[in-house]
This record gives sequence, C-alpha cells and structure tokens, in this order.
Amino acid sequence: MTVIALTGAAGRLGGYLREALAKRADKVILTDRVSPEGLRANEEFRQAELDDYDAVHAALAGADVVLHFGAIADEAPWDEIWGPNFVGARNVWEAAHQHGIRRVIYASSIHAVGMYPRTQRIGVDTPHYPDSFYGLSKCFAENLGRLYWEKRGIESVMLRIYSCAQPNNERSLGVWLSPRDLVQLVEKSLDCPIVGCSVVYGVSANSRCPVSNEGAKFLGYEPVDNAEEFAPEILAAAKPDPSDKAQLHHGNVFATGDLGVSAVALMGRAEDGEG
Amino acid sequence: MTVIALTGAAGRLGGYLREALAKRADKVILTDRVSPEGLRANEEFRQAELDDYDAVHAALAGADVVLHFGAIADEAPWDEIWGPNFVGARNVWEAAHQHGIRRVIYASSIHAVGMYPRTQRIGVDTPHYPDSFYGLSKCFAENLGRLYWEKRGIESVMLRIYSCAQPNNERSLGVWLSPRDLVQLVEKSLDCPIVGCSVVYGVSANSRCPVSNEGAKFLGYEPVDNAEEFAPEILAAAKPDPSDKAQLHHGNVFATGDLGVSAVALMGRAEDGEG
Amino acid sequence: MTVIALTGAAGRLGGYLREALAKRADKVILTDRVSPEGLRANEEFRQAELDDYDAVHAALAGADVVLHFGAIADEAPWDEIWGPNFVGARNVWEAAHQHGIRRVIYASSIHAVGMYPRTQRIGVDTPHYPDSFYGLSKCFAENLGRLYWEKRGIESVMLRIYSCAQPNNERSLGVWLSPRDLVQLVEKSLDCPIVGCSVVYGVSANSRCPVSNEGAKFLGYEPVDNAEEFAPEILAAAKPDPSDKAQLHHGNVFATGDLGVSAVALMGRAEDGEG
Amino acid sequence: MTVIALTGAAGRLGGYLREALAKRADKVILTDRVSPEGLRANEEFRQAELDDYDAVHAALAGADVVLHFGAIADEAPWDEIWGPNFVGARNVWEAAHQHGIRRVIYASSIHAVGMYPRTQRIGVDTPHYPDSFYGLSKCFAENLGRLYWEKRGIESVMLRIYSCAQPNNERSLGVWLSPRDLVQLVEKSLDCPIVGCSVVYGVSANSRCPVSNEGAKFLGYEPVDNAEEFAPEILAAAKPDPSDKAQLHHGNVFATGDLGVSAVALMGRAEDGEG
Amino acid sequence: MTVIALTGAAGRLGGYLREALAKRADKVILTDRVSPEGLRANEEFRQAELDDYDAVHAALAGADVVLHFGAIADEAPWDEIWGPNFVGARNVWEAAHQHGIRRVIYASSIHAVGMYPRTQRIGVDTPHYPDSFYGLSKCFAENLGRLYWEKRGIESVMLRIYSCAQPNNERSLGVWLSPRDLVQLVEKSLDCPIVGCSVVYGVSANSRCPVSNEGAKFLGYEPVDNAEEFAPEILAAAKPDPSDKAQLHHGNVFATGDLGVSAVALMGRAEDGEG
Amino acid sequence: MTVIALTGAAGRLGGYLREALAKRADKVILTDRVSPEGLRANEEFRQAELDDYDAVHAALAGADVVLHFGAIADEAPWDEIWGPNFVGARNVWEAAHQHGIRRVIYASSIHAVGMYPRTQRIGVDTPHYPDSFYGLSKCFAENLGRLYWEKRGIESVMLRIYSCAQPNNERSLGVWLSPRDLVQLVEKSLDCPIVGCSVVYGVSANSRCPVSNEGAKFLGYEPVDNAEEFAPEILAAAKPDPSDKAQLHHGNVFATGDLGVSAVALMGRAEDGEG
Repeated sequence: MTVIALTGAAGRLGGYLREALAKRADKVILTDRVSPEGLRANEEFRQAELDDYDAVHAALAGADVVLHFGAIADEAPWDEIWGPNFVGARNVWEAAHQHGIRRVIYASSIHAVGMYPRTQRIGVDTPHYPDSFYGLSKCFAENLGRLYWEKRGIESVMLRIYSCAQPNNERSLGVWLSPRDLVQLVEKSLDCPIVGCSVVYGVSANSRCPVSNEGAKFLGYEPVDNAEEFAPEILAAAKPDPSDKAQLHHGNVFATGDLGVSAVALMGRAEDGEG
Repeated sequence: MTVIALTGAAGRLGGYLREALAKRADKVILTDRVSPEGLRANEEFRQAELDDYDAVHAALAGADVVLHFGAIADEAPWDEIWGPNFVGARNVWEAAHQHGIRRVIYASSIHAVGMYPRTQRIGVDTPHYPDSFYGLSKCFAENLGRLYWEKRGIESVMLRIYSCAQPNNERSLGVWLSPRDLVQLVEKSLDCPIVGCSVVYGVSANSRCPVSNEGAKFLGYEPVDNAEEFAPEILAAAKPDPSDKAQLHHGNVFATGDLGVSAVALMGRAEDGEG
Repeated sequence: MTVIALTGAAGRLGGYLREALAKRADKVILTDRVSPEGLRANEEFRQAELDDYDAVHAALAGADVVLHFGAIADEAPWDEIWGPNFVGARNVWEAAHQHGIRRVIYASSIHAVGMYPRTQRIGVDTPHYPDSFYGLSKCFAENLGRLYWEKRGIESVMLRIYSCAQPNNERSLGVWLSPRDLVQLVEKSLDCPIVGCSVVYGVSANSRCPVSNEGAKFLGYEPVDNAEEFAPEILAAAKPDPSDKAQLHHGNVFATGDLGVSAVALMGRAEDGEG
Repeated sequence: MTVIALTGAAGRLGGYLREALAKRADKVILTDRVSPEGLRANEEFRQAELDDYDAVHAALAGADVVLHFGAIADEAPWDEIWGPNFVGARNVWEAAHQHGIRRVIYASSIHAVGMYPRTQRIGVDTPHYPDSFYGLSKCFAENLGRLYWEKRGIESVMLRIYSCAQPNNERSLGVWLSPRDLVQLVEKSLDCPIVGCSVVYGVSANSRCPVSNEGAKFLGYEPVDNAEEFAPEILAAAKPDPSDKAQLHHGNVFATGDLGVSAVALMGRAEDGEG
Repeated sequence: MTVIALTGAAGRLGGYLREALAKRADKVILTDRVSPEGLRANEEFRQAELDDYDAVHAALAGADVVLHFGAIADEAPWDEIWGPNFVGARNVWEAAHQHGIRRVIYASSIHAVGMYPRTQRIGVDTPHYPDSFYGLSKCFAENLGRLYWEKRGIESVMLRIYSCAQPNNERSLGVWLSPRDLVQLVEKSLDCPIVGCSVVYGVSANSRCPVSNEGAKFLGYEPVDNAEEFAPEILAAAKPDPSDKAQLHHGNVFATGDLGVSAVALMGRAEDGEG
Repeated sequence: MTVIALTGAAGRLGGYLREALAKRADKVILTDRVSPEGLRANEEFRQAELDDYDAVHAALAGADVVLHFGAIADEAPWDEIWGPNFVGARNVWEAAHQHGIRRVIYASSIHAVGMYPRTQRIGVDTPHYPDSFYGLSKCFAENLGRLYWEKRGIESVMLRIYSCAQPNNERSLGVWLSPRDLVQLVEKSLDCPIVGCSVVYGVSANSRCPVSNEGAKFLGYEPVDNAEEFAPEILAAAKPDPSDKAQLHHGNVFATGDLGVSAVALMGRAEDGEG
C-alpha cells in the first residue's frame, strides 16, 4: 500500500496534482489550512498550520512520501513569511524523519536563483542567488533538505517551479509550466528509484526557456507543452518597454521589487501559480 | 510605426532577409554600396560606403533597429578589410547611438572563434579565438557592441553565422544555416523583449552541428532545417582526405590559410554566404 | 576498396554489427578466439588471441580501419583480464600503426567513469574514474589511443557503451543502447571525415539518460530508440529497494562489487552486452 | 566620528576584537545577553537578546558599521539555535537597514560548506554545503546578506571562520585562526573602501590550510601566523586513527555528528572559538 | 648581437625601461613621435608615427624583439585613438613579421577586462571585457597578436599593466606596478625561452591585488614591491565615499566614465602611467 | 613500531630518501633488483623484481606503509616497460592490500600530463594526458591506486615528480625538485593523518614553476628551494632555439620524441632523476 501526503492541498498547484495522485496511490493525505473541495474516496483531509510542528507531525503520519507544496506563494513581509515558509519547511522534513518517510518532493522556486540575469543560462548546479524573502525561504529549504539527505538519508527532489499560470505577457513566454507537465514532473520524481538530493526546474518545453535541466535528465522528465503557442497573440499585443528591467532577471518582478512587497500585486494579477 | 535598417542589403544574406522584413516593418531602409534589385513599396534605398561615417549616419536616420550585415564576407588583405569591417562597424554603432536606436543585430561569424578545434564543442560564452583578419573584425565588433551596451544602453545580438550556402562537401554538413532558419533567427532577435548583449550561433538544426546555442535559448530560436538531407549524396562522392587539416578547426580553411588571403578562393567556389 | 577489421566478432555486440559492415565495406575481416557463425561472402575469419601480438598483427593486415570490440566484457580477476583487455588493446593499436591503418573505433565503456554518482551528469570530457579492473582497462585503452593520436596520427573514437541488453530493471532504463543505435553510432564514427581522438557515450535516446553527448555532437550520432517503452512494465513490477546503492553510481553493480568479481553474475543474468 | 557595534561582545571572539576596535573607533557599542567585563572609556554596553528585534534595533542605534559575532557557536537542537542564529541574523540586517548602516561584517563559518571533503580545495565561490543546523544558519545569513546588498545596498563581508582555538590535534593544524589574524581580518574588512557582498575564510597562514582566499585577495588580508609551530608536539603525540572520518571533511566532527548534537562536546573540550 | 626596439620610448613607462634595456642589449632602437632625452651610446632614435606603416617598418629594421609601448595612454575620442592604438598595433606586428622578428612584448592594459567587478578575481584566461575605446584597442591588439602567433609564429607577451604611478588614493592600493617590477616583468618576458602568446598582469606584489598571475607563472615574474607601504597615509586621509562606483570595477573610472572622455582627467591628475 | 618499505631503493631518488626514512622509522625495508650500498642498522634489503608478484609480496611483508619508487625512469620500448612499470604497480597495490598496508606513496610523474602546453597551468585535478608509454604507466598506476582507495580503502599520494636532477638548461629552470624538497614531500605525505587518494606535483619553489599545488595544500608541503639560483649561469650560456618545441610542453622531450625511444638519451645526459 502506498500513501502520499500533499501539503498545500487546497492551493492551485495542489489542485492540479490531486487527480493523478489519487489514481496512483492507495491513499492520499491532503493537508492545508482549510480543506480542499471534493474529496475523493481515497483522499483524507488533515488540517494543519505549517508552523505548528505537532499538527504537521500528525498530518504526515502513515505517509510513504511527502509532496511539500504548502507555503505563501508570493513575496511577503518577513513576519508573514517566516512561519509558513521557513518554520514550515523545517517541520515537514523533521516530521518526515520522525515517521521514517523516505522522500520529500518540494515545490521550490526559480526565485532561489532569481537574481541571475536572464541572458545567463542557469542549470541545476548553479549556486543560490535569491531575489526576495520568498526566494530566501526556498534556498533555506533546499539546503535543509540536503542536510537531511546527508545526515539522515531522506531523499529530496527540489522542483524549481517558474510559473504555472498561463502566459499572458512577453516575460512569461519562456517560463511556463503547464499543469500536465507539472503532473509529469511529480510522477517522474515519485518513480525514480533513487534520487539522492536533486534539483530540477519546473518548466515546460518552451522554445524560449532560459534554464537547463540537463543535469537532472536521469529523472526522465520530458515536458510536452510549449508556451510558444501563446506567442503570436502576446507578441502582437506587446508594447515593447525597454525600461522593464524585470525581464533582465530570471526572477522577473521579484528581482526588482522591494523586499517584503508582494510581487503578485506588482505583476497586476493573481499569479498564485508562481512557483 | 516600425522602421528597420539593413546594411549590406545588396548582398546574398541581405537578399534572404528582405521579404520577411518588408512584411513585418512599416518601412525598411536598405543600404549598401549599390542598390539591391526590385525595391518593394516600403523599401527605401540609401547608398552608403560603410567607412564613411556621414553616409552611415544619414542612412540610419529614422530607424528603430539596425541589422548590420554589410562587410567584406571573406578573408582579405588588411588594407581592404580595414575600412568596411572595422571602421564600418564603429560607424554603425556610433550612428545608432546618435540616432537613439535601441538595438543592433549583427552578422558576426564563426571566424571570431575559428581557431578552436572542431572536436571541442564551443558555446556562446567561449572566448574569442579569431582565425583571420576577417575573424578579427568580428571580435572587434562584438567587443565594440558590448561597450555600447555597457556604456550607452544599446542592445546587440551577435549572430555568429557559419555558412549560409548549400552544403557541398563533408566539411560543411554540420555548419549549414538555411535561408529560412536565418530569417527565423533574425525575427527572434527582433521579437525578444530584452536581449542585453548576446551571442548566438547561426546554424540550422544539423545532426553534425559542432557548436551549442544552449546559452542563448532564451531567444527562442528553433531551427527547422538539417543539412543531413545532403549527407548521402555528399558522403557517397567524398574522397576521404586525411590531410585536410581545415576540417579539424571550426574556421575551416580560414583557420589554415595565410592571413589576408581569400578563403573563398581556397574553398574553390563563391561561398559568399560564409558568415 | 574498403576493408574493415572487427575484433570480438563472435561476441554479441560484434554480431549486431556484422550485417551493416558487410554492406558498406568491400571486405570485412572478422577476428576472435573462435569463428563466428554464418560467414557472408565478403567476410573473412582470422583466428587470434588478443594477447598474442603476432596473431593480432596478422589479423589486421590489409584493413583500412579497425573496430576493436574484443575483450572480456565483465569484471574479472586480474590474471584473466590482463591479457585480453590490456595487452590486447596495446596489440591492436600497435598493429594498426605498423599497418598504416588510420582509425580505430573502440568499444570502451561507461565503467571508465563508473564511480561518479548518477545524479552527477557526466560528459565526454569528464576525467576517468574507473569502477573495476574492467573499467581500468578502458581508461588504459583510451589513454593509449590518445597517445597514438598525438604521436603517430592514428585517429580513435572511444564508444563508452552502457548496456546493449534489453532493459529488465529500473536501473537499466536510462542506459540502454539498442542494437540499431549501436549500428548507427559505429557508422557515424566511420563516416566522419576527421575525428581526432574523441569520446562518445553509447546510449540510445533514453528519457532517463544520465550522460551527455553534447561534446561529441560533431559526429552526427542521433539515436532513435528510447528505453522508456519498457518503463511501464518494469516500474509496475519494481520493488523499490532503497538499499540498492548500485543505482547511485553510473557503474551500477560494477561500482559496488569487489575488485575482480564478476558483475554480470551479481546482476543475476548474462548481460554480456554490458559495455 | 566612527561608531562600531559588536554583537556577541561577551564571547571569546568578541573579546579578541575589543581592544583593536576601541583604538580605531570613536565609540564601540558592545551588545550581548550579558555584559562583557572591563568596559573601556569609549565602550558602551547595550543588553539585547538577538531574537528580540526591538532590542537589536535599539542596540545598533547610532552605529556606522556592525560586527555581527553573536550566535550560538556550536551545533544545537533546532529549538535552541533557531532564535539566536536565524532570527537574530535577520534582526541585525533589518535593523542595520532601518538605521542606514552601510556595512555588516559577519562571523560566518566553515560549516556553511563543511560537507565538502577536505581533499577538495574550496574557495570563496564554492556553493553552500552545510554540515549541521549551525552551518545551515550560516548559509541562511550569507544569503540574507546578499539580498540586503542587492536590494538595499548594505555591504557585507562574510568571515568563514574555521577555529580560533589553539590547535591541539592533527585535525586542527590546517584550520587555525590566531587571535591577531582575526583582528587583522576584521580591520581589513573595515578599511576596504567598497566590498559589495564578499566571502573570505578566516584562517591563518597555515601550511596545511585546505581552503583558498584567492578570490578575496582584494581585501588585502595577509595572515602572519602558522599553526605549523604546533605540529611537532601534536604529531609526536598523535595516535593515527584511520577510522576518524571527521578528518575527511572540512567540517570536522560537525560533518559526522548527528543533527542537533553539540559538536563541541564531541570534540571533547570547550572549543567555543569554533567559527 | 641583440637588438631591442622600443616604441613609445619617450613616454614615462619607456623611460623606466631604457636603462635596463641598454645594459642587456647590444643596441636599443628607440622610437616615438619625438626623441627621448639623453641617448646612451647604444641607443638610437628613429622617429615614427605609429599609424604610418612605412615609418614603423623602418623603425624596426634590424631588431630581434620589439617592446611595443607606444600608444595614447588614456581614453580618448575615437578619431584620436584610432590611428595610434589600433592601426599602430597592426603596423607593429606586421612590420615585425616582415622583418622576421620573433617576439613582441606589448603594453596591454587592465582596461581590456576593466568592466569586471573588482570583487571578482580575474586571471590570465578571463575573456575580454573592455571598459573604454582605450580598452577596446587593447583587446584588438591582444587578438591580433594571437593571430600572428597562430598563423605566422610570432610570439607575444601581453602585459596587462594596471597603474605605474605611485598610489595616491584607496582605489589604487591594489593595482600599483612599481618601476622596478615593470623592469623585471619585461626582463622575464625577454628571457623566457618560449612564450607562445601569453598574457600576464603588470602588478606589483600588492596585498590588495585583485588579479591573479597564477596562469603565467612559467614566466618567472616575482614582483618585490607592495603598495601596502602607502596604505597608512592614504587610509588616514581617506574620506570614504560609498558612491564611488569606480571602485567596484577593475577598470576604475574607465569603467564608469563616458566613451571617449579622458579618464586621466576624471582621476584628477596626470596618471599617464595608467596601463 | 613503524615499518616503511621502499621500492626502487637502489635508484637515485631512493638514495635521497633513505637517511630521512631510517631516522623516522623503526625499520626500513629496501627492495630493488640489486642491493643499495651501505645498509644502516635498521635497513633491511629484500631483493625483488617488480613484475614478480610473489617477490613483491614477500618484500612488503610487515610494512605499515609503502613508498613505491621502483620503475624504469625513462621512456622505453613497450616490452621493456610493461613488466616493471605496469605489472609492477599492480603487484605493489595488490600486495599492500593482502598485507593490510594502509597507504602507498607513489613516484608518479609529470609525464602523466606531459602533453599539455606549458603555457597552460595545470593543477592536481587536470585530467590525464600522457606523453609516452612511460607517462601512460603513471596514468595507469594513478587510476589503479584510486580503485584500491574506493574499493579497498588503501590511501595513496601520487607524487607527480618533474625532475630531481640539478637544472642544466633553460627548459629545466621551472621544474626542479631539490633532494631536500623531495624528502619534505615524502615526509608530509607520511604525516598527513588522512589523505584519501591525492595527487601533488613534486616541484621545488621555483619562480618559473608551471604547475599548481593549490589543490593539495592540505598536505602542508612547503618547498624551500628555488631553481632560480641556477638561472644566471644557465641563461648566460643559453643559445635561444626557437625550434625547440619540447619547451612548449610540460613533458619536455617526452612530448616530442617517438613512442618507446629513450628521452633521457634525447636530453643528452643521464637524467635518471626525471620523475
């Protein structure tokens, strides 16, 4: 019997994953602050705040593997992001250790390396270069996961997700992760016999993709979607803006906004799918 | 209204580009020593010698972007190549600056790095290693463009074109750039919202391609042609010549011929499409 | 007239190659300890033990190119592997030199670099890191071939073959080399006008392939098979074994077994196709 | 008038620095949980717990530069290390920002990269590889400082201190930082006109030093002590222990002990000078 | 009999070299626009403008080796720098070739790589990154020299000189080249049996030196002076200026000034020793 | 009680080491084809041919550590070099394993990497690039030693010795290893608590040294001699020979001579100290 636990289950990315997880697992534990809708027969909801260790510990009981997708998915003031994104990550890995869970698949983000210029191709071994408190929390969790691998043998796959929202401007054409490619990425991360502690970018097969997954090819992830399908419409409507410095960095507006200020708001829409 | 200026408009590569440019721009300024044939309604010819700053300045007036394809397209004695290839490049970037033009797309060449052995894969960040005065002029112009980006904010895309002539020997199977892939490469260089100062190799999707465009993937260039279609006929007729040292270098005969001596002549045909 | 010599002609890999070689060459010299079956009209068998220089010298007489595929294809005690794999390699290159043969195509192996962790992608320039006496013999022969290139002008292509047996477990999904891709790889190595001394991995276009052939792309090798076709059946039957340390290294069980002990036996079947 | 603030002022490293700071600054603010002894005329003590933002903010008022040396200087359980080492670091940089302080000099540690094998030389650009919760807190603070540099223009020098205690075993011969070299390192970090966000290892000029400060040479740090003076006595008494795996990692026993368990205790003495 | 030719002989750097050259050579040819003062018995002056090929050719007649130190030693408008720095360099190498001269020792400059941030250590293999037209001329000449080595066997040593003027501000403490170290550098470049085409930084043994000559150690250059002797006085008088962005780049004010504008003037004194 | 075994004890390098070894060890086993002269009280001679496993096994009985210095110290025909250099190395490591010996210190050679150009600085991680059968044997033994470390836990230090003979020409000024620096290098290799499998170049502190030991600094080797003391006399007598291609490679005449031909003879004297 296989049991998968999913944190952030009520979020948008969590929603993209639930059907596939329900099909392949005997049981799926869903955890979040509030219950997601429409529980399937083999889905079980367990409420938990991420910064509450006991709640997280209880939520992961019985799981074989954890998909840690819960977090504030935006730049935010320190006091707001500290608990769910930093403390929460520590709670998940520690509870995984206490339960003898073997693998954590983590929704990391491009923002762990977002300050690199976009004209510089980055790979899975590129050193951290966060662009925000949000990105800093991803660096923290990736390093934490590596510690748990070296010291306690818990495997991790760090999915550096770019943007899981449909492209709506020039900036986003290279960085889209389609929902079905997200599902594939998670499934390959589950299937791979041994992963150690690995990093992989969560992007579709976009023509304009500015990152390389060469170093993680052993996972077998082969995306099928390409944001180029949205290019004609977007480019036709584009008003070239040479002063848009956000486009010069992998982290987009996260790289240019002030610390602690919502980047989603700066982007002018609810891109909660931003990794 | 968009205005594109094209230098070297009467050359072969220029000829491949004119139709696509005329379609996408409101107006195309064509400049060269002599007028190209068959001007379209929105094409305007302005005669200019590249080493004449005033003429170049006048030619670029009103343009939003420049495609700088004018130059002697072969190794040549110093006194012949100096004016059009070195002074000409300086004139183009300086005039672009004076006119407030934002981007230059430059027909650079593999010969900027032609002395590398072909068994060593080279990428967009590989340091210069010219194989000829011709190649030296490409290094010069790439460095010049980088200066104008750092100091004056003019963007550049350096297209390191290999050979835009149809493959006719074993040596050329890996390095072909088909006319339609050239057009795509230029269009992607025009479309990309922000490019900084970037380098990309001008090659088709050849099976035997010895260079990597990984580092410029953010441009979205995805070639569709493959010189392998010519392989059966060429290989059938090939007389293996182990003494052909030109094949050991990316720069082909440019890498083995004497300084100042026409490589096109050495290759035994008018390969004026050589980048 | 073209004459190709093939050592190890009675082995499994040799068997995969014979038909294609017979078609393209005027004559194929087959050599091995025992005669392969079913000689074609233009195939000639010449018996030779690899560690017998005179026999090897005689066997290669008249050849234009040598495919050196003869060796013990498994980890083995020193006294058994010494003659065929080390002395044999020296004999082949020296005889090639004496005969004026221009190129050797060598069945090297992943085991020349098998101690690298599989989560670390390796390329054609990655330094040696053998996992066994068998792997050590491949390092030896690759270095030897490089010497003969530098000092005596004999070209070599080192094919670092992974596994040419049909995948039958999770471990082997990324590393398969299909027989027809092997044939293509050898043909491209024969066709390429000049190769110097080059390394290329012998793998199919597997989704989970953990090595990179980017650096050898000039050869034009474009595999067409993908072990992913075997994945559903294998993964369905897989019993995840977190203690299977062999999966953490490129060299699989060669990397974890004791020196001199048959890895084929450890793998539980006759995988003589192991490169 | 120059005002320097020193956190952790009552600790051992703080004690090594006070005299030199008092000489060069008009005023030195000392902060810690308890007051250090023997306040000089221009030293002022301000009590603060590092995890108390308001207290930290008050302590840094009026400073031009901060030396952040306060922290638990050992591996410790999560709940103990969390406040002073993580929250404390954030509080220091944020308060520095609020006060308009230009530079933070931080007592980072080798344990930010302690999992690398000691036979692998590491430099100032080597990616993080923490060996403990303690090391993780150093990675966190280094990344945090980089954020404050990119986004808010606060410069940082990250001093990756090895061990400031006198060598007493073979393991420590390469990694000593003498008190006077510590003082020099801090003074050079204060003097350098512009430092951006830089990393430098805190080690003396030890013959057996396993790290490189080449990349930070612009700071002008030139250590004068060498642990080799202790070698004869230590080596004479040494009982070679081939099973001492701690010696194989830069992080010593931090790299081999369990998460959360005091490494100082494992080392068998109070090495509170451990960076 | 050994004959050394020195261009720019009437300049300051030339002046530092004359005595040593006169001692080691049978004859020294001095060339410049105007005659230097105080010709020694074995010194001969030959007037030449660098952009006049015939004059340069005549000046180098009879020489065994050329020290090419003539050029405008500052950023300058294009029309002024073009002739002496670009055309002049070409004239020197071509004349050297025509005369069969074996080696050129060239006064290149840090400004060939001046746009790199000073916190990034650069070495002799770091790719070009010019900071000015002046720096561009150095890139040009270095590439030109490499061409003449590959194609015509003329050796070159490119001396990337920083500043040969006595340090007078914080910015210059790391980059001083003392006159006697300059002499040693030239002598070692003359003595070394074979140099190919090599690059070496012209800096003294400064504690704060931001570049590495590791890659050119085979030359045997071992500077003896250290600008640290000037540090106490300079630092005592320094008024820290956080807005001095010039300090963040290797090229100092060359990196921040406008193209074509004298950097020497910007620095507020006649630093004609600037390399 | 400490017992050191030394192979090649009757050779010149062995002779340099004996006194120091006799002082530090309780007993020194000397082995070679013939007995060295003047046995000390704690020296014991055991005759052995290196290619005779039983003899080697007997010779090493009782040792705690092996210094493997026995080999043909020159390029030689295959049939001559095969036994002592290849088979001999295997016999030493295998016998060490059988006896439970923990460490082998091996007289490797620059010729394992001798084909690199001397203008390219090489370090301890530079991949193999042999220049001769002799160099190939060093590559073989280094890889073999690495295997025994990975699989059987025997540590090795590979001393890539350049030339232990007094410099007598320009070519050798950078590459000298003085006898006392050799002794220090061996002693540091013996003292270092844990070495894994490490490489270090055997060179003195020569001003013109073309290799880097940075990567092995943890060993604590700090040479004290400098071949520059011989430079004035050698350079005064030097007849510059631009055609001496041997100087362009690290391997000197080994890199330019034919395979199997004595390089010592080519160098015109008995430089048996050549590593």
